Amino acid sequence: MALLVMKFGGSSVTDASAMRRVAQRVAASHRCGNKVAVVVSAMGDTTDDLLDLANQIAPGPKPAREMDMLLSAGERISMALLAIAIQELGVPAKSYTGAQAGMRTDTSHGRARLLDVQPGRVRSTLDEGTVAIVAGFQGISTGDDITTLGRGGSDTTAVALAAALDADVCEIYTDVDGLYTADPRIVHNARQITRITIEETLEMAAHGAKILHLRAVEYARRFTVPLHVRSSFSDREGTHILVGRPLTEDTMEEPIISGVTHDTSLGKVTAVGIPDVPGAAASVIGAVAQAGVSIDMIVQNISTSDARTSDISFTIPEAEGPDAVAAVRALQATMGFDDVLYTSHIGKLSLVGAGMRSNPSVAAKLFESLASAGVNIEMISTSEIRISVICDQADVENAVRVVHTAFGLDAEEEAVVYGGTGR
Amino acid sequence: MALLVMKFGGSSVTDASAMRRVAQRVAASHRCGNKVAVVVSAMGDTTDDLLDLANQIAPGPKPAREMDMLLSAGERISMALLAIAIQELGVPAKSYTGAQAGMRTDTSHGRARLLDVQPGRVRSTLDEGTVAIVAGFQGISTGDDITTLGRGGSDTTAVALAAALDADVCEIYTDVDGLYTADPRIVHNARQITRITIEETLEMAAHGAKILHLRAVEYARRFTVPLHVRSSFSDREGTHILVGRPLTEDTMEEPIISGVTHDTSLGKVTAVGIPDVPGAAASVIGAVAQAGVSIDMIVQNISTSDARTSDISFTIPEAEGPDAVAAVRALQATMGFDDVLYTSHIGKLSLVGAGMRSNPSVAAKLFESLASAGVNIEMISTSEIRISVICDQADVENAVRVVHTAFGLDAEEEAVVYGGTGR
Repeated sequence: MALLVMKFGGSSVTDASAMRRVAQRVAASHRCGNKVAVVVSAMGDTTDDLLDLANQIAPGPKPAREMDMLLSAGERISMALLAIAIQELGVPAKSYTGAQAGMRTDTSHGRARLLDVQPGRVRSTLDEGTVAIVAGFQGISTGDDITTLGRGGSDTTAVALAAALDADVCEIYTDVDGLYTADPRIVHNARQITRITIEETLEMAAHGAKILHLRAVEYARRFTVPLHVRSSFSDREGTHILVGRPLTEDTMEEPIISGVTHDTSLGKVTAVGIPDVPGAAASVIGAVAQAGVSIDMIVQNISTSDARTSDISFTIPEAEGPDAVAAVRALQATMGFDDVLYTSHIGKLSLVGAGMRSNPSVAAKLFESLASAGVNIEMISTSEIRISVICDQADVENAVRVVHTAFGLDAEEEAVVYGGTGR
Repeated sequence: MALLVMKFGGSSVTDASAMRRVAQRVAASHRCGNKVAVVVSAMGDTTDDLLDLANQIAPGPKPAREMDMLLSAGERISMALLAIAIQELGVPAKSYTGAQAGMRTDTSHGRARLLDVQPGRVRSTLDEGTVAIVAGFQGISTGDDITTLGRGGSDTTAVALAAALDADVCEIYTDVDGLYTADPRIVHNARQITRITIEETLEMAAHGAKILHLRAVEYARRFTVPLHVRSSFSDREGTHILVGRPLTEDTMEEPIISGVTHDTSLGKVTAVGIPDVPGAAASVIGAVAQAGVSIDMIVQNISTSDARTSDISFTIPEAEGPDAVAAVRALQATMGFDDVLYTSHIGKLSLVGAGMRSNPSVAAKLFESLASAGVNIEMISTSEIRISVICDQADVENAVRVVHTAFGLDAEEEAVVYGGTGR
């Protein structure tokens, strides 16, 4: 008998019939003798409908505390309906709000961080053989106000609950069969990954793969929660994400490369002609960080024409471009550099694989394959298990396909991509 | 500076523009220097929409705990939106769930009773000059589960909150201008009541007046909460309901009669030919009560044709008719009576007025006016301040008009009846 946490996102519970399908799956797992805790998001369009109402009432900025109160109604509806659907199948089920499930957060409305999980009621419910359904995305703050966890919040709720319950596995149900060696919409013969380490998953999530939210993966890694990412529309095995074991050095066992990800949501800022004095880079990057901008990659290089100045480039989420440019622009006069350039026409390609650490030819092979495809590399950054390059946005999709083929990741058949509802 | 509780029902918050109108009213009261707590119901159709979803998932009986979880989302949405709307007007506002507002109930899901109200957070919020918005209709049980209070629940929340906060007045906003001397849809020149005692209000609510829920009126009487029933669509003074003072004997000050109510939602059960032995009535009524049926009026009279048997008739809510008949039918063989008759074609007219206790001619005048209109009286029951008669349902509307005129209640002008939305 296993203890499972099953997480279903909004696209798995769009309407009553989808809700019944999820209930069937939960009931089947319960009937196998498992203790089942379910984390569920708001139904399909609920959040958008509530936001729409709020915008009708206040077109501008809205009080964050009240927006959390408003949006948290969405999970309350879906979890109660799911409990009703499961009970309709003869399986006992009870729903719990974030507060009732012991999801204690800080007071940052709209993007609260979990501080503590005390799932005593959930555990008692599981122990009595009842399915426990927990509202994803929400918690209660140290000030006893309702909070929401922000983007990817339901995944985080599921992983945190699994950690607190010491669950055997946290199953993340989504609308694809699992993680792929590349985005199947771009690489039609991308291959589904059956097993992957949490470290590789973290790199993939951080560098463009959209199936799992980075925050939930970080949580899973920290608390060694095994994940199983799978489709809510089929019974196929998905991707098992392995945690808590040393990365193997034996490349016969693991593939060198797990996948190729890409990201076109970044922008690039360049400060041109910075006088080459100690601390210049620190000043620029420090000012940007202080403006609350998340910096992705940084490259500094001496100007070829004038050895006494250098350029600093860094990438950032596109939405934060204006803030980043403003922060750098504010330094221009005092630091005496020439100009600040900005472009959002960049793309990032990342090659991720635990095997590359013992295989020094990976970088060379990557650059060769990009060169042969005529892709110009603007920036490079690496980790132990990842190489990322920045190129022109127009080149990214072709680059992903070329690299995917070069590293032997192509499957013989085309990947199946599921639609949203109706399957 | 007064402390007010303002209660708005679902018909006052049907959409974003209605929500803004309510916000204007709350903000205006706050700007007058009042401490304002608001109790709000779910928006217009929300509850029906949620019930519809639940019915799609489980057509039959549904788990009461989960239905409460589901329906309580409705107030969460309306109270958060109202808080946003009030803040949009520059007035600070915070919303609180039933649990956060300290509404502790028993564990009877769907019809929970309030056990205790501990509005500490609401009080602090008011003390800091912020409007506190509280979800009507809901609470948290002694087992820490979400409960709903059943019919009229939001009125009860408002009155209970007003009692716990020792509010100066509890304003109940509705879609009419207040209480009337009769239903204005039937008596077109019914007069709005400006002042009335809580005891009279209780009798009116218990005998057909639909503006206030009996349960909330009982609560207001018990905890001496002054009520002001008024329209959310106009600024006119409504009906002030007076509590905590002795009923005056001075009929010069108070009108003898406050109003005429009617009720066509009742059925009548008659057990025919009951052997006239001691305890017969107790057996019949006891069996009906044990079946959970609410008994309204009871009449027993010796049969005219046969002095050794009698008939017992009683009225009950129509919905409980089948249960009542079954309970009486079960006694027929052992008690040896002739038959059980049932009709739902009855109507009840009630005349309510604190002045009638010192005015013995009221009953005679009532019966005379009914006789002159050709209305046949089937049953009579009285209290200190009320006389009710049962007649044929087809006669009720005419009877109400005749009695209204006979007691001099007609106004010179027609009453204004507001529609639901859009005003």
